[in-house]
Amino acid sequence: MCAGPAAELGITVTVLAEEADGAAAQVFRSAPVGDYTDPATVVAFAQHCDVITFDHEHVPAPVLAALEELGVPMHPSPAALAYAQNKLSMRERLSDMGIPCPRWRAATSVAQVEDFGAEVGWPLIAKVPVGGYDGKGVLLARSVHEVADWLARGPVLLEERVDFERELAVLVARSPSGQAAAWPVVETVQEDGICVEVHAPAAHLDPGLAAEATAAGLRIAGELGVTGVLAVEIFQTADGFVVNELAMRPHNSGHWSMDGSVTGQFEQHLRAVLDLPLGDPRARSAVTVMANVLGGDYAELYPAYRHLMARDPGLKVHLYGKGVRPGRKIGHVNICASTYAEAHERARHAADYLQGVITE
Amino acid sequence: MCAGPAAELGITVTVLAEEADGAAAQVFRSAPVGDYTDPATVVAFAQHCDVITFDHEHVPAPVLAALEELGVPMHPSPAALAYAQNKLSMRERLSDMGIPCPRWRAATSVAQVEDFGAEVGWPLIAKVPVGGYDGKGVLLARSVHEVADWLARGPVLLEERVDFERELAVLVARSPSGQAAAWPVVETVQEDGICVEVHAPAAHLDPGLAAEATAAGLRIAGELGVTGVLAVEIFQTADGFVVNELAMRPHNSGHWSMDGSVTGQFEQHLRAVLDLPLGDPRARSAVTVMANVLGGDYAELYPAYRHLMARDPGLKVHLYGKGVRPGRKIGHVNICASTYAEAHERARHAADYLQGVITE
Repeated sequence: MCAGPAAELGITVTVLAEEADGAAAQVFRSAPVGDYTDPATVVAFAQHCDVITFDHEHVPAPVLAALEELGVPMHPSPAALAYAQNKLSMRERLSDMGIPCPRWRAATSVAQVEDFGAEVGWPLIAKVPVGGYDGKGVLLARSVHEVADWLARGPVLLEERVDFERELAVLVARSPSGQAAAWPVVETVQEDGICVEVHAPAAHLDPGLAAEATAAGLRIAGELGVTGVLAVEIFQTADGFVVNELAMRPHNSGHWSMDGSVTGQFEQHLRAVLDLPLGDPRARSAVTVMANVLGGDYAELYPAYRHLMARDPGLKVHLYGKGVRPGRKIGHVNICASTYAEAHERARHAADYLQGVITE
Repeated sequence: MCAGPAAELGITVTVLAEEADGAAAQVFRSAPVGDYTDPATVVAFAQHCDVITFDHEHVPAPVLAALEELGVPMHPSPAALAYAQNKLSMRERLSDMGIPCPRWRAATSVAQVEDFGAEVGWPLIAKVPVGGYDGKGVLLARSVHEVADWLARGPVLLEERVDFERELAVLVARSPSGQAAAWPVVETVQEDGICVEVHAPAAHLDPGLAAEATAAGLRIAGELGVTGVLAVEIFQTADGFVVNELAMRPHNSGHWSMDGSVTGQFEQHLRAVLDLPLGDPRARSAVTVMANVLGGDYAELYPAYRHLMARDPGLKVHLYGKGVRPGRKIGHVNICASTYAEAHERARHAADYLQGVITE
């Protein structure tokens, strides 16, 4: 999704691709195939780059160390990335900063799990500190038995189950020079641990809470030294908010900005990692609703896509060039409108139709 | 400029490029280099394509004939393209349709030039029917002597010099199925025969005149069988308008739409030539001003570009990946704003600064 902004800004992008016909390889002139977990491969790739950035956080430590030795600028830096890679490090650091978090504990034994369960009440949330994604490595545990397997492999992050009203996300971008910009706070709608919709800005959000959450996002970016886009996923509660997760990259909760903001998150990420001045993150429309398109039962998207373009000429379709598999995020749609009701109806219809959940 | 929309819509574009490091080759995965004037080269390229379109009209007739024989769909078709390639054919056809045109004459002799000059008054406009572009092949002739060279080579199109108030452009897109959509009528500001700015929509345009001009654009697209984007350049006069030129491709006067419209002209052109349903052409902002960036005296754009991004975070910069040469269009900027004064000041400043005309 960087391809368009990179072309317009005259920025040459080269991607270390997983497959010769993968999503990136379809849209970038230069997309050599290689194993991103192999330090020698990554160094050979990176030595021709002016700046390196990442499209996910799961870059192995030996690869980051090899890149650091090579001396090519990396944004975000490994030091910042560590907090997105390891949820325990993130909780420790945010708690030290006084950022509101759920009550949490690092447990290495059954007794510690029992203690924490007695303190915050069951069920509780258990997380593998490293490697989780989209609901994987996260568990709503009703008893200590459910986390026994994870405990055997290392420390487990335990968190109280937060009684939240809804989920929000704060997206900011920060450049190596320290300039930062925040998009409006959005609401993220989750189903089975997967984000299905984003409403930008979050409807009826108290301006004081929006300002506090935005300030927290900017402070996290600054103190952790994040460069590029930072997404802070938060729970809105009866008396404020707590931070759920961090992601250091353009994030699903920011896809609305590709059509809904003066500067979309992919343009902003490029500007940030190149230390160019940041663009205006303001919304261009009263409301933008983004709906993810998940793979459905039929693999052929084209007839649905054609139908939807005819039904709704204002629909903005974004496809990722990925094969269709049930439940896989294969694209998203954005609707900019003047009301939530209208934007939601149109975006929801399009995503459901593409997925095959509805047929008219 | 198709690269971004093509990536988002999942459309694979391959470009027959003039140079290995040319503008298209920088942003498309597939951009084989070849001579577009050689029928065999073009056929070898085209046989792997589902649809062919063109980024300018000057495609030689033998190439079009070879493509037609190959049977790959071409949009626009050679039959339509003929009216954009040959200004005499265009004048004949538009006059037959009753579309307002300047008074004109096809002259093949000095006597015919003298006659027409006596009829409409000197100076008059002389045009080489085929091959003109951006002021080339067009002359304000004060006497018959000035067109003698052209007359020796073939018929010359003569037109009265229109006493116009300003120049407008109507852009429409039309698909092979016949669906059509029109963007708001814009004002184009020319200097020395080159478009320097576009104001979208045209300020203070009488709604009746806007509707008439739009209807003329849609009718021309339909009757000439144009597919893809059609730009109709018109002169606004004291009592209406006359058509100046036609272009059958995304056009400089439509670059504002990349940021200013729900559906930009490059997305719309792709949708049209693939016979996908067309997108909403409405403006997203009260005003959008586009300013062309012409090559100036210094070749290094980066410091200026960086400065402008810092000065105006809402500036949308579009660079074409072309080398800087004085007077060459190397990019454009768009500003969406609520007033003409603001949009004009910001866009004009950015273009002048990039060009080196001003230094602060």
